Amino acid sequence: MNAQDCINQLIPNRNPCKNQGFGEAPVNIALSKYWGKRQLELNLPTNSSLSISLPGLGTKTQLTLLEGVQDQVSLNGQSLQADDSFAKRLSRYLDLYRPPGLVFRIDTFNSVPTAAGLASSASGYAALVLALNDLFGWQLDNQKLSILARLGSGSASRSLFPGFAVWHKGERDDGLDSFAEALPQSWPELCIGLVKINTAQKPIGSTAGMQQTVNTCELYQAWPAQAERQVKLVQQAIEQRDFQLLGETAEHNALSMHATMIATWPPIVYWQAESITAMQQVWALRQQGIEVYFTMDAGPNLKLLFLADNKKAVETAFADIQIIQPFVK
Amino acid sequence: MNAQDCINQLIPNRNPCKNQGFGEAPVNIALSKYWGKRQLELNLPTNSSLSISLPGLGTKTQLTLLEGVQDQVSLNGQSLQADDSFAKRLSRYLDLYRPPGLVFRIDTFNSVPTAAGLASSASGYAALVLALNDLFGWQLDNQKLSILARLGSGSASRSLFPGFAVWHKGERDDGLDSFAEALPQSWPELCIGLVKINTAQKPIGSTAGMQQTVNTCELYQAWPAQAERQVKLVQQAIEQRDFQLLGETAEHNALSMHATMIATWPPIVYWQAESITAMQQVWALRQQGIEVYFTMDAGPNLKLLFLADNKKAVETAFADIQIIQPFVK
Repeated sequence: MNAQDCINQLIPNRNPCKNQGFGEAPVNIALSKYWGKRQLELNLPTNSSLSISLPGLGTKTQLTLLEGVQDQVSLNGQSLQADDSFAKRLSRYLDLYRPPGLVFRIDTFNSVPTAAGLASSASGYAALVLALNDLFGWQLDNQKLSILARLGSGSASRSLFPGFAVWHKGERDDGLDSFAEALPQSWPELCIGLVKINTAQKPIGSTAGMQQTVNTCELYQAWPAQAERQVKLVQQAIEQRDFQLLGETAEHNALSMHATMIATWPPIVYWQAESITAMQQVWALRQQGIEVYFTMDAGPNLKLLFLADNKKAVETAFADIQIIQPFVK
Repeated sequence: MNAQDCINQLIPNRNPCKNQGFGEAPVNIALSKYWGKRQLELNLPTNSSLSISLPGLGTKTQLTLLEGVQDQVSLNGQSLQADDSFAKRLSRYLDLYRPPGLVFRIDTFNSVPTAAGLASSASGYAALVLALNDLFGWQLDNQKLSILARLGSGSASRSLFPGFAVWHKGERDDGLDSFAEALPQSWPELCIGLVKINTAQKPIGSTAGMQQTVNTCELYQAWPAQAERQVKLVQQAIEQRDFQLLGETAEHNALSMHATMIATWPPIVYWQAESITAMQQVWALRQQGIEVYFTMDAGPNLKLLFLADNKKAVETAFADIQIIQPFVK
């Protein structure tokens, strides 16, 4: 099954009920990571993953139907050229939903600090799917919305929800059982600290990096089972409010994902010198009895995990940190 | 079988033929690494490994028999206290060979730049075994000497030989088939560059690090088969003088070993910020068409691999590098 067939099964119509649609979605940070696709076009993952959304950081997208020949895309108020790679990727995704003879105007605003290495594609495709749902008046349930978002960007499947979300990897070839759902728990004391490490361009994008890992990393064989186990452990930690279990599992999981990249050929090392320095700072804090852990995505930046009690100690150690308490408004 | 039983099988007597014995052995750098023990006391490895010895860097050891109650150990001309951990480890190893009622004076000289992260235990135990062989007049063959050295420190089994050596992991429980042997090939153009990264104490020693990896790293499952395959590839590269195959295999192997450490819990990260900077320099040189690769042991230092043609380019990029051409006197 391809993406078009999948979407045809999920959406009730291609008849817009109004001229404009709006969607808004948060970025999310995986506490147990998604790394590896079992099917490329449908973004079907090798393993399940579990994330926390960051309220206040994300994407707002307005869709407007136009008569014309070409979509118009603006990002943070700036019009993009038609041959811009971001604009082209969005248009290709919108082709899957396009009513005959119509084009879209897409106005997207990201409130994501670019240097912090937060993936805007997750919040971006989640917001876009919500805008489509609004424009067409589909009133789809979260499960279907999550599948549609996944077709745009895997981790977008998790960005439809506030708080914790689990993306079940699913087993089916058509991916209709591969979607995220929210966990009911909240954790008011939980803090996420964004450590910004300035860096040049990434050595390789996530999709290409995943493929290279799956194809050439022998150690990756053991990753899917480890990740599946760690999703369950993080979920248990959330249910029992066991912060040590949460932190240890998330850090071990992130380091193991990076290990699969490092053991890939050619090697994929997203770490910068400053990443190692920041890791050593985290471990030094733990040595001092301050319970701080980190996670890292496909980039050089650390995202710290700690409880509100340790906010001061963390701010003292990391001068430029941005702290978010996901469950506190 | 324990180490004592094993030694009893290998040595013909405990009757010194003279009062002094001398041994000398080089350090070695594994191009396909030893990481993981299948048996702790006998230093039996999970996987085979392949190394290159560095002439001129190593250990010289003189053994003298004394009447007394306690061994006397000096390192680089400095007498060590009896409770020094290095002296105690040597004495425990010598207990396995000790003639009744006698003690040893051990004078050891290491010509190893300590900041370069070259393991002196490999050359140290190889030199000590040669000194014992001399003192007792055993005239053991290289295979037996390699087994005796292995009982002191795994990688010492490879330090009995100049040039390339393969340590066959063996299958037997008594380890009598786990020894190194020299490869016949030489490679005059081959250069090793020691990049010194100043660092504090290692986070964890090799033996403890290996055990922690074997016990907690799920990705390690795939390591033994990968390492076995890469020993064969490095050997093929040497036979065919295929430098690209040698370099790529050695770098991939070292990064994969470090990946197993990074995916261990608690994590074992021997890398320092400067290690990442040096790796990036190597990759930048390769981008420019200069064929340089690196390997790393259980520490933060890089050892570069390149051919003599590129000596100038490497010296320009790495100001403090120490270059050795193992096959050129």
